[in-house]
Amino acid sequence: MKQKPKIVVLGGGTGTFVVLSGLKDEKVCLTAIISMMDSGGSNRILRDDFGLLPTSDIRQCLVALAEDQGDQEILRQLFTYRFHQGVGISGMTFGNLFMAALSDIYENQIKALETVQRLLHTKGKILPVTLDDVHLVARYENGHQVVGEHSIDEPKHDGRLKIVEMETIPKAKIFPQAKKAILEADLIVLGPGDLYTSLVPNLIVGGVSQAIKKSKAKKVFVVNLMTKYGQTYDFKASDFVAVIEKYLGKKALDYVLINSSVNFPDSLLARYKEEQAKPIKDDLKNQHYQVIRADLLSPLEVKKVAGDGLKRSLLRHHPGKLASQILKLLAKN
Amino acid sequence: MKQKPKIVVLGGGTGTFVVLSGLKDEKVCLTAIISMMDSGGSNRILRDDFGLLPTSDIRQCLVALAEDQGDQEILRQLFTYRFHQGVGISGMTFGNLFMAALSDIYENQIKALETVQRLLHTKGKILPVTLDDVHLVARYENGHQVVGEHSIDEPKHDGRLKIVEMETIPKAKIFPQAKKAILEADLIVLGPGDLYTSLVPNLIVGGVSQAIKKSKAKKVFVVNLMTKYGQTYDFKASDFVAVIEKYLGKKALDYVLINSSVNFPDSLLARYKEEQAKPIKDDLKNQHYQVIRADLLSPLEVKKVAGDGLKRSLLRHHPGKLASQILKLLAKN
Repeated sequence: MKQKPKIVVLGGGTGTFVVLSGLKDEKVCLTAIISMMDSGGSNRILRDDFGLLPTSDIRQCLVALAEDQGDQEILRQLFTYRFHQGVGISGMTFGNLFMAALSDIYENQIKALETVQRLLHTKGKILPVTLDDVHLVARYENGHQVVGEHSIDEPKHDGRLKIVEMETIPKAKIFPQAKKAILEADLIVLGPGDLYTSLVPNLIVGGVSQAIKKSKAKKVFVVNLMTKYGQTYDFKASDFVAVIEKYLGKKALDYVLINSSVNFPDSLLARYKEEQAKPIKDDLKNQHYQVIRADLLSPLEVKKVAGDGLKRSLLRHHPGKLASQILKLLAKN
Repeated sequence: MKQKPKIVVLGGGTGTFVVLSGLKDEKVCLTAIISMMDSGGSNRILRDDFGLLPTSDIRQCLVALAEDQGDQEILRQLFTYRFHQGVGISGMTFGNLFMAALSDIYENQIKALETVQRLLHTKGKILPVTLDDVHLVARYENGHQVVGEHSIDEPKHDGRLKIVEMETIPKAKIFPQAKKAILEADLIVLGPGDLYTSLVPNLIVGGVSQAIKKSKAKKVFVVNLMTKYGQTYDFKASDFVAVIEKYLGKKALDYVLINSSVNFPDSLLARYKEEQAKPIKDDLKNQHYQVIRADLLSPLEVKKVAGDGLKRSLLRHHPGKLASQILKLLAKN
């Protein structure tokens, strides 16, 4: 029997959620490698009060990959639930509390994560990029430094400033299982996702970019739909690619996948404009990588969830459209 | 095929946990009817902040009846878990938060309870005695009144005082499914359990004692092992029976089951003595009910759970010994 092709998705956040949702029912062996550097909301409590690694990004992947029927569908629903009552409880996600309880019972967060995946019958494996407890540090073009994923994501400074350097304190080392998955992959998907809080955090973990370069997998980067104030203000598509290759290594990408549809609803664009965000301009040309353009846009609007203090973006890649383009890459020579 | 005999267990708390644990693997159709008047700890938060009925007693029954292997064993373990970290979260039980989240998703606490039972593959059905949101009121022999299960359970007044009257405010009405189970039962088991905070709270719900009297089921009361300061200080076995029949109706019991073993470890007796509690003296004689004496004692010591501010009693009935005596009653003429 022919082995199923192995796809590794690197990231965290809603972009990765979309990629995993699109690929979960395909005949592929799916692994998500997820950054573990969240520091806001529920995650701060997990880190400070529970002494655990933050699991919000992992929780989203669990929901994306969970079986969506029977008992698992109920657990999946619970994992997306955020409490909005109770002092100290309001704002916490059920999924994070579930994993915190299980980590305490097992005295082992990795075993807890494996168990949760079994309970949810996830179609694919989720691995933390590192088991080290680290924080993100961003240095901006004006020399200013900021510590913590949350402070980068919701900047108190001028969000038009460019980030010139990212690192973690202390240094982090790749989780061996994640390294193995990267080395054995047939295709590695980076993005879409917040450049400096979901994608680069994976690449600055010691051993990750080395493993990706060493891997025989095809490497594809999926460009976001919108710029983001505080991270990628006024970025063009080529700016995204340049940052990825800065951390991943020169000429490391084989493909860059970018949305070509311009059907952005005006009402949504107006709301993005309020946040100083706009559609990313496609200025890409074929180079060492091939540019693939396709309609990847989802017509759906994403609502804010009750009790959720964090902002959610409103325009998304379409899981099915994105998955279909990703699967085509597997067949390419 | 012969129908399995129907046993209804009325109560709440650890006594009911023991009865259910003992009977869960027997060939009986088991229903637990549980008081919903807890007001301490986790339950106060459920009631005040979440607007839900308190579920701690139900949670204990869920754990008692859950499948104890595979995925259910993990959920069962989680349901016994109490958080001991996180401001506002510490002291909450995972099971209560699980049911609170599900109740909010379904906007229906009964549907949530049914769903949890399905997830845990419970061997038996758990029903709240009432769906009314009520509080316990106890009047003492000196005229003093106390409101709330928690205040009765851990009295700030002289705990040697006798309770002369119990009621709920407002009045509560029996949950129709509980009434149906009582009417169809072959055997109804009351106790063991805290007299005024687990047993009587069921009997003072409007319609409960009427249904029990109307039911053709045999009725057995299981006497506790130890007296309890604040509730049953210096009580003899006959005092327990008198209180039960006060609320249940005269000559309502068919059997009274009482432990005959005297193998109480001295170290435990000393600890009980500190709390002004002692083994209950058996002064029972056969009357309209038959007294059944048997060794019902468990040799196990129960430890305090981390993060649990509530007291747990240390001497228990043995689930297997108790179940075996209860099953014998089914066969009696």
